[in-house]
Amino acid sequence: MDKHRIKFLPLDYTYPGEHGENLLEIAMKAGVYINASCGGNGTCGKCKVRLIDGQVDSIRHPKIDESEYNEGVMLACQTNIKGDAVFEIPLESRVDRSILNRKKSHGALSAADVAQSLNSVVPELRLLKLYIEMSPPGLNDQMADAERLIRRLKEILRDKETKEINIELNIIKKLPHILRDSDWKTTILASETDLGWNIINIQKGDTTSTYYGVAVDVGTTTVCCKLIDLRSDRGIENRVIGESADYNAQISYGDDVITRIMYAGKKGGLKRLQEAIAGTIDRLIEDLIEKTGVDRTSISHLVAAGNTTMTHLLLGVEPRYIMISPYTPAFFNPPFATTKDVGIKAVDDVPLYLFPCVSSYVGGDIVAGVLSAGMADKEEISLFIDIGTNGEIVLGNRDWLMCASCSAGPAFEGGGIKDGMRATYGAIEQVRINQNTYEPMILTIGHERPSGICGSGLIDCLAEMILAGIITQNGRFNRDLPTRRIREVDNVCEYVLCYKEETRIGRDITITEMDIDNLIRAKAAMFAGCKVLLDSVGLSFFDLHNIIIAGGFGHYIDPIKAQIIGLLPELPSERFKFIGNSSLHGACLYMLSKRYVSQAVRIAGMMTNIELANNNRFMDEFVAAMFLPHTDERLFPETMKNHWQKNNFNDED
Amino acid sequence: MDKHRIKFLPLDYTYPGEHGENLLEIAMKAGVYINASCGGNGTCGKCKVRLIDGQVDSIRHPKIDESEYNEGVMLACQTNIKGDAVFEIPLESRVDRSILNRKKSHGALSAADVAQSLNSVVPELRLLKLYIEMSPPGLNDQMADAERLIRRLKEILRDKETKEINIELNIIKKLPHILRDSDWKTTILASETDLGWNIINIQKGDTTSTYYGVAVDVGTTTVCCKLIDLRSDRGIENRVIGESADYNAQISYGDDVITRIMYAGKKGGLKRLQEAIAGTIDRLIEDLIEKTGVDRTSISHLVAAGNTTMTHLLLGVEPRYIMISPYTPAFFNPPFATTKDVGIKAVDDVPLYLFPCVSSYVGGDIVAGVLSAGMADKEEISLFIDIGTNGEIVLGNRDWLMCASCSAGPAFEGGGIKDGMRATYGAIEQVRINQNTYEPMILTIGHERPSGICGSGLIDCLAEMILAGIITQNGRFNRDLPTRRIREVDNVCEYVLCYKEETRIGRDITITEMDIDNLIRAKAAMFAGCKVLLDSVGLSFFDLHNIIIAGGFGHYIDPIKAQIIGLLPELPSERFKFIGNSSLHGACLYMLSKRYVSQAVRIAGMMTNIELANNNRFMDEFVAAMFLPHTDERLFPETMKNHWQKNNFNDED
Repeated sequence: MDKHRIKFLPLDYTYPGEHGENLLEIAMKAGVYINASCGGNGTCGKCKVRLIDGQVDSIRHPKIDESEYNEGVMLACQTNIKGDAVFEIPLESRVDRSILNRKKSHGALSAADVAQSLNSVVPELRLLKLYIEMSPPGLNDQMADAERLIRRLKEILRDKETKEINIELNIIKKLPHILRDSDWKTTILASETDLGWNIINIQKGDTTSTYYGVAVDVGTTTVCCKLIDLRSDRGIENRVIGESADYNAQISYGDDVITRIMYAGKKGGLKRLQEAIAGTIDRLIEDLIEKTGVDRTSISHLVAAGNTTMTHLLLGVEPRYIMISPYTPAFFNPPFATTKDVGIKAVDDVPLYLFPCVSSYVGGDIVAGVLSAGMADKEEISLFIDIGTNGEIVLGNRDWLMCASCSAGPAFEGGGIKDGMRATYGAIEQVRINQNTYEPMILTIGHERPSGICGSGLIDCLAEMILAGIITQNGRFNRDLPTRRIREVDNVCEYVLCYKEETRIGRDITITEMDIDNLIRAKAAMFAGCKVLLDSVGLSFFDLHNIIIAGGFGHYIDPIKAQIIGLLPELPSERFKFIGNSSLHGACLYMLSKRYVSQAVRIAGMMTNIELANNNRFMDEFVAAMFLPHTDERLFPETMKNHWQKNNFNDED
Repeated sequence: MDKHRIKFLPLDYTYPGEHGENLLEIAMKAGVYINASCGGNGTCGKCKVRLIDGQVDSIRHPKIDESEYNEGVMLACQTNIKGDAVFEIPLESRVDRSILNRKKSHGALSAADVAQSLNSVVPELRLLKLYIEMSPPGLNDQMADAERLIRRLKEILRDKETKEINIELNIIKKLPHILRDSDWKTTILASETDLGWNIINIQKGDTTSTYYGVAVDVGTTTVCCKLIDLRSDRGIENRVIGESADYNAQISYGDDVITRIMYAGKKGGLKRLQEAIAGTIDRLIEDLIEKTGVDRTSISHLVAAGNTTMTHLLLGVEPRYIMISPYTPAFFNPPFATTKDVGIKAVDDVPLYLFPCVSSYVGGDIVAGVLSAGMADKEEISLFIDIGTNGEIVLGNRDWLMCASCSAGPAFEGGGIKDGMRATYGAIEQVRINQNTYEPMILTIGHERPSGICGSGLIDCLAEMILAGIITQNGRFNRDLPTRRIREVDNVCEYVLCYKEETRIGRDITITEMDIDNLIRAKAAMFAGCKVLLDSVGLSFFDLHNIIIAGGFGHYIDPIKAQIIGLLPELPSERFKFIGNSSLHGACLYMLSKRYVSQAVRIAGMMTNIELANNNRFMDEFVAAMFLPHTDERLFPETMKNHWQKNNFNDED
């Protein structure tokens, strides 16, 4: 469907909007400032606009009086668009700053783009699901059950140079019953080995009409699953049958990998963590089965990608030495495991393939991400960035790959920030600050009353505070501005984003100078990591063809804002690619084709890890990046010209 | 030590005896008839002899009176020889029959022979036990534990074209602790695969100075184990460190494979049988560990050989279809299993290799036996016979092998025989019958009071009854003989071997006409099976280079007696080879060298099974063999000449 044209007066600026899209969200994306402090849930009643022309769905709010209502005044957060429309922004919301010349989106892949990329993969599985009819035994053919099956399979596969077919004890235990109960008509599932095939499951009758796998992104915080249709028939319209996501149940035992590893060191800790993550995956698969009605026995295998610690914990392997110098995990290449080995009960005992890891802090999720991004196929050089507690970065092309992990700290996940929180309902995720009034416009996830501020909100807020001149380049507050929102509490300066009347938590939500310090450290670590990688191969940011931003979080980062604070290097917007949950997408690809399995192995093998801990060059770059955007302004020429010089410095002139 | 010369008067026959050997046993072996009806335990007081010259150890028995004692009279069963000696057999024991010109033994392999044959094998194991020192990780070498071990192992094995080294999940779980606790000095155990090596165990420090395996013969009735020294050092003097044997604990659930299979069909039956046999093996290994003081962690793997049913039950696999036509087991080639899979806890979780089976009734024990007999190496044609509940037979040479199983019935194991019993203490195992008085001379196992009669005793007894003219060629009693030992009870004719005063069971031990009928059926089935195999390749018994008698039971069969009853075909005595527990010996060989592993696989693959159930030619041969020795006397020319014509027929002349 075509997009609607939404025009904002008096700016005379038009921005596209989806049918049914919320007007406050459109304004936020368009960079049109509208007062809003309740996150979009309609309680503050500040985000008034007047409909000049067009059709909308809008709920009349008690804070809109009769005369306002008759003039077409409505709350932007309570208004969804139905067609082209023209709105007037009321005086109190107007800013004299021109709208930032923003791209209409961050160039993020849409869900449809992602699905399309999977649908276009021609399946070439390393699991064979095959219907087999056998002749029953007789006194003139007394071949045993297992050898009868192998004999028949060799006949069927004769053109494929089948060397060896192996049947495991667990399958042999089922054979006598299943073969006879099914009148010698069964469907087998076999995994390909270097020597031939290994039969890993057998089912009565012909079950080849359904064939699914579950791809899993095992995140430290969240776990996401996709149920994938694995049939090789042409004309499968949508390979993604269902999706489910939940918090990793290990969250109760610690926020990040370090606290998890420490918990694993306690008596029974490793077992509890193992059971927690297996339980989360189990419930997500149950959820998928329930939502889609897919028969659980038709799920043939799982592919999971996780960081090195999550991969260890899922397999129940000691993670302790990941966090102790010299940071060596128990393994890089996960051993073969099955769902039974880890205690996943929602499906039969089927293989659980895990992505290989590269180092203690560059794990299978990054390998899957690089696979998904396709950067190891191209001649052009890309920089892959996954921003989270540990910012992982990968630099390279089809010929070489360098990687590193920067201990950015948990600031971008809301950790170590006074009112920081995870990106969940009620988290402030977008912020604009009026450069004249210093009043904020905020949007929360789910448009609920604000409970705190999440990563993307923090980046927005930091950038907006800079642009509004609230803070200086070294992160100190400008205490002389005429706004009560900047204040000092217990000798700590802070900016009030929401007063307690508007929050869900019964107190003000603020950003303190210490929060800003933590954010600067986090962004400095990420940037310094990228710089060290580039320097190590004699390249500069301007040599990059693409910057690929991975992770669900990456979806919500505004690259302009990220450049303003110096988190992301400066490149034209079109060179930023936001690929979303590339770990999950990589797991889907790996599941669908052997080609991607080989590629994942190749990528993991190619990646050279640069250890940044105790690295002097990293420390130098880190210190240099502890400034907004950077002590070396030549790294951000356009940003300085377009934003800084227009704002802060103009103010100071 | 040289043997003593024992001379019997008035026969003037000299026979060698071991120092300390029992005189009644020497007489039995020598074919010298001495009255004896208590099995050798001194209660009947009949086996009187008089010492003419020499020194003996003898206990004076109350049934020897003062004057007899002064004349040198003693009980043979209470006398052990100390040097050359001359004895006079008293009148009541004398027979006018000349001593049969027997070989001094059946040519059976002695324990020393068996041990020697193992000691001469140059070990070439398919398990690698290797001490490995690794360099510890550092910031400039952050290789993960698993990959560090693999890297080092590849360096060490570099001249062996190592393609792939795999470490299983269970081992990876141990790695971080063991590597660090041992200061990166460990011993690994790896099994060879077609692709490389699979690391299956890891231990701290250097444990290569001890290296053991346990070979197991999983019999339906008894289970035997040998603890084998696997070190490849030259100069290992004795590879067999210890032996242990016990009844298969499954005995409580049935005497033979058929009753076991039926029991497995009951609720929980299969699990109980599986646990029973695993428990028996577990206890035998504990016993070996206790007896030898060997460290349980130095036992690296198990090799077991059993019949098809035992192999299924040990792995917990449904055996039902073994006994239902068309008799197809779940597998011929056992899948890979470990001690943990079957619940053996005396050792670490190490591989349990099982011999391949050929058909439902020709199992891994027979493959191991054929391997042990070496018949598949030779150009000459041999016949391998394992006499038991199911007599298994194998015919062939290095180029071809045919096999069959004859449902001989349990007669030779004492089953279906009124006073039949297993070969255990108190079982009558040797019988001679005086051809004039029809009085028996019996020896029991352990010289205990008789409780019944076992297989070898039954063969002896049947042959002796024929030679004494007690029964006719069709197994009917000659009711006219002047002896109270032949009598009729409830219309069934029987011969009394022991009167109740002399038995442990409080009643007479007898052989009935029905018993004889069962024995004839059993021997006819064995003989007919051999005949069918030979006929199928156009050979006769006279073409056989060897007849190899396997099984503990085979040790005690007298081939002359077996020929007299027509159980074994007629060949010169020297062509009979008694190889004892060849299943266990085969398992030892398989453990010691890859060469034997390949050979076992080759043998199992070569063996063509001839199904005798519902086989018309077998039925014809079976009927023809229901005669003593056979309806076709041309098959037993020497036997007829030497024994029958001298005895029964002479009597009738």
